[in-house]
Amino acid sequence: MNFADKLIAAIKAKGNPICVGLDPRMAQMPTCVKKGSPAETFLEFNKGIIDAVADLVPVVKPQIAFYEQYGSGGYAAFEKTCEYAQSKGLLVIADAKRNDIGSTAEGYAEAFLSGGAVKADAVTVTPYLGYDGVKPFIEACKKYGKGIFVLVKTSNKSSGELQDCEVVIPDGKLKVYEMMGHFVESWGADEISESGYSSVGAVVGATFPDQARVLRKIMPKTIFLVPGYGAQGGGVVDVKPCFNKDGLGAIVNSSRGIIFAYEGSKHGPDGYKDAARDAVKKMAKELQKAI
Amino acid sequence: MNFADKLIAAIKAKGNPICVGLDPRMAQMPTCVKKGSPAETFLEFNKGIIDAVADLVPVVKPQIAFYEQYGSGGYAAFEKTCEYAQSKGLLVIADAKRNDIGSTAEGYAEAFLSGGAVKADAVTVTPYLGYDGVKPFIEACKKYGKGIFVLVKTSNKSSGELQDCEVVIPDGKLKVYEMMGHFVESWGADEISESGYSSVGAVVGATFPDQARVLRKIMPKTIFLVPGYGAQGGGVVDVKPCFNKDGLGAIVNSSRGIIFAYEGSKHGPDGYKDAARDAVKKMAKELQKAI
Repeated sequence: MNFADKLIAAIKAKGNPICVGLDPRMAQMPTCVKKGSPAETFLEFNKGIIDAVADLVPVVKPQIAFYEQYGSGGYAAFEKTCEYAQSKGLLVIADAKRNDIGSTAEGYAEAFLSGGAVKADAVTVTPYLGYDGVKPFIEACKKYGKGIFVLVKTSNKSSGELQDCEVVIPDGKLKVYEMMGHFVESWGADEISESGYSSVGAVVGATFPDQARVLRKIMPKTIFLVPGYGAQGGGVVDVKPCFNKDGLGAIVNSSRGIIFAYEGSKHGPDGYKDAARDAVKKMAKELQKAI
Repeated sequence: MNFADKLIAAIKAKGNPICVGLDPRMAQMPTCVKKGSPAETFLEFNKGIIDAVADLVPVVKPQIAFYEQYGSGGYAAFEKTCEYAQSKGLLVIADAKRNDIGSTAEGYAEAFLSGGAVKADAVTVTPYLGYDGVKPFIEACKKYGKGIFVLVKTSNKSSGELQDCEVVIPDGKLKVYEMMGHFVESWGADEISESGYSSVGAVVGATFPDQARVLRKIMPKTIFLVPGYGAQGGGVVDVKPCFNKDGLGAIVNSSRGIIFAYEGSKHGPDGYKDAARDAVKKMAKELQKAI
């Protein structure tokens, strides 16, 4: 079973397309999870979140920057988080936005997709270097039954500085994100599986619904990983254009809105797991109505 | 002293602009450095290279992909490599090509520029997300006296797929790499120091001399980190346009051509340090003639 099939099956089984972002920050760690080091604290916190949401959602996405901040110890906590999530039946997207020239990208592809030190099912990839920097990741997808999500239109305010530029092509003009969309759809053409979707996915921010609508048409077979929901300002209406008519084709990530839902909730810091569970259920209902 | 001043001073002191890429690969590790794990082997190998070149060159650049391949253990070897290089008086560029939205990029900036777990003097950054993804790195440069090198025109074959595209601007057209060059020069304007150069640098591949010539004009105050020399096909003539008339403004990286110089040399695997030293001296002579 390739990654796209696994993901679509998990979305159907759980009845929602929610991805929980595991982005721990020391300032927001409840006292009940505090251990000797930030890395141990993060792992304890993540285990709680994973336990709370594993039966509800198909996929989690730890963002490795928050772990790398604490060096190799943080990196080890990232590895253990991925492993624990997989052991609870969750799919894991390593949000690492790796990129390099071909011979070096092979190293990253091996790191995140071989199932060696990092137990992930997919990794995010930045396409500034063009196809030969992405190809090693696609080859690893094929070899190991894994997936990638290529940045196309990101959720941040200044994403347009490059991504919204109009590029001259032989028969007219295209925005950079549209051109990247065409690239990603073609790069993933060989990775389309029984589900009808490709294991080569795209990152399309929830904060830009108009662009998402255009990209959905350019990339009918591509699964969108949609960040920017909740804390970054994206709402239900904004993510709707990311889905196909079959109600599939996208997973919607929320990080802070779920993992720190205890803030300002009835549960309080020690009830962070219950708060996360409630937040997931609420988000699932909102999405169900919209899609 | 900010990063640009430190780098320019080191280039002048050593009399060459060579950056040695510490990109270890298991298949090419000499028997004499082999230890229990790949991570330990890499560290032993790197220490040998660093000892061999520390009095000759201003800077080294470990490429973290080769280390991450071995997970947190590899990451620890990367940390120890950086620390050892600094202890021998070398400047260290962490070649990590990190990138993310602002609040997450802060984590990466802290990881590579705070002097915490990773002892580096600069880090490479990919600009696909625009300024708000780069800003946290620039703020960290200011705070910690460090530097960044933003990918502008990379050395790989398919770099042109995006980077060479023509973009429509209000008064005409620009290639993407030219536009990024203008961005980088302006992002770094506040970081220009006594040396006349900025701590916000640019990556410009040795394999594209015509583009480098254009970029040198667009970015007079920006230091170029020039990969692609040697194994990737760039030669002395190709890197010449990366330099300013003052003979400064660029550092030229060679990885395989130096660290694996023992292959096919009189020294053999056990003489890899002497071979690396010879290769650096040869490269320094070649560059001196050209610049």
